[in-house]
Amino acid sequence: MTPGPPRWIVGVDIGGTSLRAGMVPFAGGEPVAVVTGPSRPEEGAPQMVRRVVGMVRDSMESLGEEAAGIGIGVPGPLDRARGIVIEAPNLGWRDLPLRDMVARRTGLPVALDNDANCAAYGEWWMGAGRGTQRLIGLTLGTGIGGGIVLGGEIYHGASDSAGEVGHMSVRHPGRTCSCGGRGCVEAYASGPALAARAAEGIDSAPNSSLATLVREGPGPVTAEAVCGAAAAGDAYAMRVVEEAARILAVAVANLVHLFNPEIIVLGGGLAGAGEVLFGPLRAEARRRTFRPAWEACRIVAARFPATAGMIGAAGVLKRAIHG
Amino acid sequence: MTPGPPRWIVGVDIGGTSLRAGMVPFAGGEPVAVVTGPSRPEEGAPQMVRRVVGMVRDSMESLGEEAAGIGIGVPGPLDRARGIVIEAPNLGWRDLPLRDMVARRTGLPVALDNDANCAAYGEWWMGAGRGTQRLIGLTLGTGIGGGIVLGGEIYHGASDSAGEVGHMSVRHPGRTCSCGGRGCVEAYASGPALAARAAEGIDSAPNSSLATLVREGPGPVTAEAVCGAAAAGDAYAMRVVEEAARILAVAVANLVHLFNPEIIVLGGGLAGAGEVLFGPLRAEARRRTFRPAWEACRIVAARFPATAGMIGAAGVLKRAIHG
Repeated sequence: MTPGPPRWIVGVDIGGTSLRAGMVPFAGGEPVAVVTGPSRPEEGAPQMVRRVVGMVRDSMESLGEEAAGIGIGVPGPLDRARGIVIEAPNLGWRDLPLRDMVARRTGLPVALDNDANCAAYGEWWMGAGRGTQRLIGLTLGTGIGGGIVLGGEIYHGASDSAGEVGHMSVRHPGRTCSCGGRGCVEAYASGPALAARAAEGIDSAPNSSLATLVREGPGPVTAEAVCGAAAAGDAYAMRVVEEAARILAVAVANLVHLFNPEIIVLGGGLAGAGEVLFGPLRAEARRRTFRPAWEACRIVAARFPATAGMIGAAGVLKRAIHG
Repeated sequence: MTPGPPRWIVGVDIGGTSLRAGMVPFAGGEPVAVVTGPSRPEEGAPQMVRRVVGMVRDSMESLGEEAAGIGIGVPGPLDRARGIVIEAPNLGWRDLPLRDMVARRTGLPVALDNDANCAAYGEWWMGAGRGTQRLIGLTLGTGIGGGIVLGGEIYHGASDSAGEVGHMSVRHPGRTCSCGGRGCVEAYASGPALAARAAEGIDSAPNSSLATLVREGPGPVTAEAVCGAAAAGDAYAMRVVEEAARILAVAVANLVHLFNPEIIVLGGGLAGAGEVLFGPLRAEARRRTFRPAWEACRIVAARFPATAGMIGAAGVLKRAIHG
C-alpha cells in the first residue's frame, strides 16, 4: 500500500494566553480535533515547546491521522529563514530555534510565521478574503496585530517585520504605547486600552451595566465585557467602543491611502462587538479616504475570528513544502 | 538600412506649476534635451495637451533623435488601463483621455502613471534605490506624493490609488487638510504648510533672515526660502524645518512599521534642506520603530530630485512596451 496524497496539516497558534493546535485539511478549511491549553510562559521555553509538541500529537491521535507537516503562528519578530523566534515578550522567548525544536521532536516539516500574518493568510486562503489580490488583516486583541497578503503571498518586508499596524501612530504625540512610541493605534484600541478607558470613566455612568459589574462583581471591567455590553445596547459601553472605532478608522483610512486594498479584515475580540464597532469605523474611514480607493475596499469581520491563525499557519506550511 | 534598437524614450513630468519633457536613454539615465514650460491650467486641457506634444517634439528635434515612446507622469487619480486622468485638481483636468490624445498626435506609444509613482520608480530604476526590492519614495512639494516600488514594480493597489502617503493621518484630529481629512502629513510638512508656519511665527523672530525677507523684500516667505535659510543656519528657519521633520518622522516610522522597506527616498523641494531635515527626521523615526525594521532601512535624499519623475515616466513606458 502506497501512501495517498497528504490530507492534513497541523496548524498551531501560540498566544500569550493560550496555545491551540488543530488538524487543518490540506485543501484548506476549519481545523478539527482542536486541542487547547494555557500558555504559562512562567514554566520556561523548553517546557512550553514540549507541551506544544504534545498538543500536536494529541490532535493527530484524536483524529487518527498523520499530518504532512506543522505550521506555527507565533507573536513577535521572527527570523523565518532560520526558523527562530527573535523575541516574544509575552512568552518570555528570545532567540528560540522553535522550528528545529519542533521538527526534531516530531520528525515532521515545520514552518513558522508571525501570528497576525497567519491570521491574515487564513482569511485570505479560506475566509473573508478568498480570491482577493490585496488583503490587510487586523487582529484586535491584547495587542493589535497586522498581516498583509499581496498576490496570495504574505508580505514580509525586508527583515520579516512588515505589517505592524498596531504601532502605526495616528495621534502625535499622543499616549505612550508599550512599544515606547507615542500615539500608536494599539494604545487606544487594543483590548487592555479599551478596558482601561471604560474603567476610567465608569463613575460618570452609574447606570451602565459595566458599573454594576464593578460594584456587584465579578469585575473588573474587561474588553469582552465592554464589547458585550455595547452589543447589548449599553450607552456608556457603546460610547467607549465608538471612541476606539474612530481611532481604528484613522488607521484603516491610512491603510486604504497606502495600500488601496480590496479588503480589510478585522478579527480578534474587539471585532466581535459587531456593528457598534463597524458602523462608526466605516463612516469615519469613508470621510477620510478618496472615493476610488474607498469604493474598491470592503471593511469586514473575519470569517474565522478564533481559528484563522491555525488555518493560516497550516497554509504557510503548505506553501513551504509545496510552493 | 534597418533601424537599430530603440535608444531613447521621452519622459514627461506634468505638474501644477511646470511641464517638463526630456529624452531619457532607453537603458536608463538622466534626461537630456530637457524642455520646460509653465503649466497654465487656465488655458484649458486641449491647449495644455497641445503644448505638451509640442515640447515632446522639441525635445526629440533638439537631440535629433526619434523616441520609442512617451512616458507621462501626471498628478491625481488615473485609470491606467484606459489611459485616462480621472481628476487632477491642480490642472483642472477631469476624465481626460490623455494617453490617446498624445498617442494620436505623435504616432508613438504612450504610457501614463501617477507623478509620485514615476518619481519613486525613477529612483528605483536609476537613482538612490537601485537594486532594492522594497522602496518607498516621497516627493515633498506643493503636496506630499508617495510611490511604492515592490519587487521592481510600482505597487498600484486595487484601483490605481495606492501610495497616498501625504494623506496618512498622523495627528488625529489635527489640522484640516486640502483633502478634507484631518491631521494629514501634507497639512504639516508640504511646501505651503511650511511657508505658512514660518510666516505665522515670524514676529517672534525679528533677527531671522526670513523676517528681513518679509520686511525688506522680496517676501513673502516661501518654502524654498525657509529651507535655504535653515540650511544656512538661521535658527528660526531651522526650528520650523525641524518641526516639519518630526511630523515627517512619524510618517516615515509608520511606513517602516507597515512596509519594512529597504529604503525610503525623499525628494522634492523640502528634501533639499539637507541635514537640517534629515537629522531630526532620522532621530525621531528611529525612536519610533523596532530595531530589525529600522536597521534594514535607509532614509536618504533622492539622487535625481528634479528629474526622477521624467526618468521614472520613461521607465514606465519601457515596461509597458517591453514587459
